[in-house]
This record gives sequence, structure tokens and C-alpha cells, in this order.
Amino acid sequence: MGQIKVGIIGLGNRGQSLIEDVMLYMDDIQITAICDVYEDRVNKMADVIEKNTGLRPLTTLNDKELIHHENVEAVVIATSWQTHSELTIECMEAKKYVASEVGGAFSLEECWKLVETYEKTKTPCMLLENCCYGRDEMMILNMVKKGVFGEVVHCSGGYQHDLRNEVAFGRENRHYRIDHYLNRNCENYPTHELGPIAKILNINRGNRMLSLNSISSKASGMHAYLEKEKGDSYDLTHRIFNQGDVVTTMIKCQNGETIVITLDTTLPRPYSRGLRVQGTKAMYLEDNHSLFIDGKDNEYDFIWKQKWDNVNEYYEKYDHPLWKNFLNDGVKGGHGGMDYLVLSAFFYCIKNNLDMPIDVYDMASLMAISVLSEQSIAMGGQTVTIPDFTRGKWLKRDLEQDHPYALSKIVGKED
Amino acid sequence: MGQIKVGIIGLGNRGQSLIEDVMLYMDDIQITAICDVYEDRVNKMADVIEKNTGLRPLTTLNDKELIHHENVEAVVIATSWQTHSELTIECMEAKKYVASEVGGAFSLEECWKLVETYEKTKTPCMLLENCCYGRDEMMILNMVKKGVFGEVVHCSGGYQHDLRNEVAFGRENRHYRIDHYLNRNCENYPTHELGPIAKILNINRGNRMLSLNSISSKASGMHAYLEKEKGDSYDLTHRIFNQGDVVTTMIKCQNGETIVITLDTTLPRPYSRGLRVQGTKAMYLEDNHSLFIDGKDNEYDFIWKQKWDNVNEYYEKYDHPLWKNFLNDGVKGGHGGMDYLVLSAFFYCIKNNLDMPIDVYDMASLMAISVLSEQSIAMGGQTVTIPDFTRGKWLKRDLEQDHPYALSKIVGKED
Repeated sequence: MGQIKVGIIGLGNRGQSLIEDVMLYMDDIQITAICDVYEDRVNKMADVIEKNTGLRPLTTLNDKELIHHENVEAVVIATSWQTHSELTIECMEAKKYVASEVGGAFSLEECWKLVETYEKTKTPCMLLENCCYGRDEMMILNMVKKGVFGEVVHCSGGYQHDLRNEVAFGRENRHYRIDHYLNRNCENYPTHELGPIAKILNINRGNRMLSLNSISSKASGMHAYLEKEKGDSYDLTHRIFNQGDVVTTMIKCQNGETIVITLDTTLPRPYSRGLRVQGTKAMYLEDNHSLFIDGKDNEYDFIWKQKWDNVNEYYEKYDHPLWKNFLNDGVKGGHGGMDYLVLSAFFYCIKNNLDMPIDVYDMASLMAISVLSEQSIAMGGQTVTIPDFTRGKWLKRDLEQDHPYALSKIVGKED
Repeated sequence: MGQIKVGIIGLGNRGQSLIEDVMLYMDDIQITAICDVYEDRVNKMADVIEKNTGLRPLTTLNDKELIHHENVEAVVIATSWQTHSELTIECMEAKKYVASEVGGAFSLEECWKLVETYEKTKTPCMLLENCCYGRDEMMILNMVKKGVFGEVVHCSGGYQHDLRNEVAFGRENRHYRIDHYLNRNCENYPTHELGPIAKILNINRGNRMLSLNSISSKASGMHAYLEKEKGDSYDLTHRIFNQGDVVTTMIKCQNGETIVITLDTTLPRPYSRGLRVQGTKAMYLEDNHSLFIDGKDNEYDFIWKQKWDNVNEYYEKYDHPLWKNFLNDGVKGGHGGMDYLVLSAFFYCIKNNLDMPIDVYDMASLMAISVLSEQSIAMGGQTVTIPDFTRGKWLKRDLEQDHPYALSKIVGKED
């Protein structure tokens, strides 16, 4: 297989960044087609690509034209959340390798259709959950697989990102987020924290998520922000935002682990995915960037403060091999290298005919959290069950093949 | 009123510490009677008290004798969790001022009986939730009341304390905790984090807790610990512990705030009550001891790390007046001064005929969380409603009188 011929649908901030910061630096692919609903974006990005590669891609406002074009082998989807599933399904039906950007689902039916289409067509499909390839997330995964954490019992994390500006002024940037915040109330963006946690807990490969409960705080952040930034007369200042400022979701897993995830995007705060991993032998806490190892760190508690940020001491020994190499070769691409790695994983698996490390079952399970949280919140926090999108395959699914981008393989036991 | 004549029931670690580290240093009280179920403890503490004060207290193994003794005006209860409610009720019926140590309830009925007995007898009753008087908790309360946080939307916290040793070897110390961990599964110790949060959110005074959901992880920590510490042949090593290692509880409040509390006591970790308070203008995070103020701290996220532990910068301006004075006079007593302050509050309110700052309604609401979490866990995380123990009084209850130990008063608005 030579260069993979790639089409990209969705050229907003995310699509542009995937092209400019990542894909233009990849030798084994060629961007042959691009699509967006806005003509100016398509033209702008065609110019960028032509300038960098000498080749002008096909440009179109019609996603179907891109998907079915003979000069497209693989499709990357970076559109609004609402269209991820339908475009992914259409790609699989057209037998085009497909990678979708992250977001939540609106119905369980679309999650099931993703799975059914994959099982019918066997077209490889990947969710581009870049945080699965974060340096710390991969090191913790590596340490868990090596047994450093003992038996993992509890994980938590969050999408905790002050997006007040992006939500409020999204209209001016033709962004879809404002519509979600005005109208829906749910864990609308669960995958950045839950993706890495799912890999740590072997979800869909010997384990699965069983049920969840979600509750939402009131929505006060946007009003306070708009009042301060735009004043009383701005049209959005007195609109009711349905999206609560903080949504908490608790998930039970079949093997007895619990997961807590937090959406926290409309209050002032520093960015944090708040990862916390607890096992019978160790604990990781992103919020002070610390690793607590049983036996080694059991001193008086007041001494612990001096160890904050001690994760640095573990990189040499426990950095994931993929990251060791990445650091040696020079980290590339957006979001601290994660974007480069996640797209590299997709293209590597295409070239080597491997299962995708974040596959259609993972995609369906992770995306389903949004709609299930919406249901639970609507019912006052009631327990809702999480479907087994593998239909029993999780009982016997092998951990993936052993390749550099695999996320579930046993890296090598120690202790 | 001269010295208050105080009786103490329960002379385990907690009762001993309250006497030796706190009460012996207080001029306005006299310890006139002590009681425990073990004679050796009673004799030992009588010796200590006599040696320090020259007066030997009444000693008894019969709590009723202490409660009804004419030389006892106020009773401090530091017994096992199971007896807090019944002893508190008996004290109120005997018209003895009563302060109970913390713990969770086993039934809603006992919580209601606490309230009913208070309403019938009007005997002042206080929950000794010392963490309400922690320095950081009081400073955050002070800042919230002054408006620095804007509208508070979400709080979380935890009782996160590696108690594996105390649970495992509690039998040898005649401690009751082991029985709870073997048999129950619930948020068994909710008040250290929820007490201060309830004060921040004006629970039972203009707000109330509406409903909760709890889930529990599997129980793996104790087995791993016992296997390592005591080996395979120790009788407890292969006992099933019903208490999950991590119990998460989500609470919705009437005014739209959410609270998340975590019990995490049987896995390796540093101590943390994990307080997090988020409003429309600021955020506090105990785990890196930081305060994020909107506008002031909205720099690039990577800069934030350098501000961890910046709470120190706010003490001068925002320390609660009670703590300012306490620091000036010299901090006394156990747990960093909190024990001294919470008992001082009780005795101060007795002497000055004031409402207790953590009163019977607070006691019932906070203790009820344990039994409600037990019910929710048993039903797979189902939503359970939290009773309004004030029976509507929360709608109109004044914030307390303005005195040094008050926890709900408006300290003075700024902006």
C-alpha cells in the first residue's frame, strides 16, 4: 500500500488543525479531498494544502461526493457532533476506512447502527479519542498493565475546560456548541476522560460498563459571564441555558470498578481532565500531578504535599514505549502530540491491516454516555443501563494485536 | 453561669483525645463524670483528670447514671457510631445540653427522633463536626459569604483516609469499625466533608438537600492489605468485606447546587478531604491547595501549575475572624485546632444561651446520608429522596445569631 488517499469532512477549527498541525507532516498519506458546508473554509484549506504539497485536493460542499469519490480511501470526520454517526455509517457502507472525531450520541439507535454497520461491512472504524494517547494517560496505562497499581478499583476524570467564551461567541464563529448549551442538558463531551479510563479498565475486552447515574447543577455560569462581558442588553444574556454548569456521572462496571466523570465547562477554572486512578497498590492524581505508591509514600500526610508533581520521577521508567519513541523522534502536532499519535494509529492500522485500537464498539459505548446521561438527568438521576454493544463479544475479545499503537495489550508484567 | 459541669461518654481514642488535648485546657468547664463500657478506660482517664485538675470525676460503666447525674449539666458523646443517636436523645430528654461526635445514621427513624425530641424538649444539641471549624473550610466559607465566589454552583469533598490498618487491627483495640466494614456497604462517614459544604450552601437555612444517588466500587483493598500484612493464614484475610473501597454519592440541592462526596478509606492514598467549591467567580481545590479567581487567574493553563498552593496568599485577607483570633492567641488542641474550636463553640453557646451552630436539624440531615446511601447502593444507585428534617422551617430559618462561632451568618459583603 502506498500513500493512503484521505478525505476530510469538516473544516472548522478542529478540521483545520488536524490538517495544518498534523496531516501535512505525514508522509504516508495524501489529502485528496476536503469538504465543509461553508465554501470559504473549503477554498482556504485547499489553498493551504496546495501550497504545502503541490497538489490541490478535490473540494466539495457535499459530503456524499467526498465519501464516494474513487480517489478517497479513508475519511476523517471533524464535523459538528450531530453528524458524526451518520457520516461514519455512510463511510463504512461505502467501504472507506473511517475515523471520527469525538463527541456524544443523541440516541442509542445511532450507536447500535454504528455497530451493526461495522459488523455487516467489516469496514475498520476508529474514534479519534486523542487523550488515549496523552503522555500521562499512556504512562498510567503502562503502569496498570505492569501491575504497579495492583487491582484497579476506581477511576475518575473530567472534561473541565472553561469554554464560556467559545459557547457565548460561538455563533460568530459558526460553531454548534451554543445550540447544545441552550437546549440540551447532559454529559455532552464524555470521551476525553472516559476514553483513557476505559482502556485502563479493559472496557469491551473482558469488562464492560453496566449502568450510570447523572445529575446536573443549575446553569449559572453563562449568565454571569455574559452579563459581565456583554452587559444586560446582549440578546443571550437573559436566555435560559438548559445545560447545567457541572454534570456528574457515576458509572458501574461489570468487574466492580466505579468511574466518576465530570463535565465542567461554564465556570471559571484552569483546564484539567482530572484523571484519578486508584488501585490496591497505588494512586494517580492529575490535579496535583502525583503518584502515590503504597509502601513507598506512606509517610505522614503533611509530607505528601512536598511530593506533588512527582509524576516526573516516573517518566524514565514507565513512559509508554510509544511515547519514549515519540520523544526521541521529536513530538509533533497539536494538543501536545496526542493529535499526531491518534491519527498515526489510524493510518498505521490501515496500512498494516490491524484492528483499530479505539474501535466501533468503543465508539458506541463512549458516545452512548451522552444520551444515557441525558436520560438519567431527565429522570432525576435514575439508574440507566448501558447496552452491551459487543453483544457478548466482550467476554472473549482478545486484547488487541501487539503493535506500537495498541492500547489494551499487556505491555509486560513486572513485580 | 460558672464552670459548666461536663460528663463524657465514650473513652476510646476519640474521647481520650477530647479530654487530654482539649477539655483539660478549658477554664470554663469542669469534667465531673466519665463513662465507658470498659472499666480500664474509665479508671485510666479518671487518673488523668484527677492528676491535671485535682478533682476525680464520677466514674461509671452505666451511661444512664452519667446522663441523669445531678452533677452533670452537659454531655459529650464519643461512643461508637451505633449509640450516638440514642444517647443524644436520652440527654435531650434529661434536659442535659448534649454534643455528639460524628458518624452516620442507621435509620431515618433515629434522625426523626432526634428532631422530635429536640422540638419537644428544646434541649440544645450539637453535632461535633470539627471540620466545619477547619482553617481552610472557614476561610472559604468567609469568602463565599463575602461574594468572592459569586454564585456557588457545585461542591465536592471526601473522607479520603487510608484506614486499612485501623480497620484490620481494630479488634485488638476494641474498635467498632471492623464490624461496619465487614457487614455494611454505604457512605459510612459523610460529615467531615459534607458538614462544611452544607454550611457553604446554607443547608437547612434557605436551602436543603433534595435527593441522592450512591454507588460503591468492589471491596479489594482490605484483602490485598491483609494478605500483604498478615499473610494467607490470618482469619480476616479471606473474609468478605461488604464495604466497597470507594463509595461515591451525588446530592442535589433545592437551589440547584450539586454536591459529590467520596468515601475512600481502604486503598493506599494520602489523607485529603478533597474539598472543591465552584462558583461563577472562583474555584477552590484542596487537592492542590489552590484558589482560582476569575479574571485574575485566567492565564494560559500551563501557568496555573505554578500557582498551586496559592491559598496561602489569601489567609491574610480572608482568614475567618475566629481563626484570626485563634492564631493570634495560639492554636490549641487536636486535629490542627479544629477540635478545640468545635468544643469551644458548644460551650460558648451554652454559656450565652445561643442556638447551636451545627444543630439538631443539621445533625439529622448529615447523619441521614449514611442510611440513604446504603439504600441507594442496595438499589443499584437509584435516586432516594432526602427528608426535610426541618419540616419547612428551612424556608424561613434565620441565619444564626451573630457570635464568634456562628457558621452561617453573613460576615460582611465585599466585591
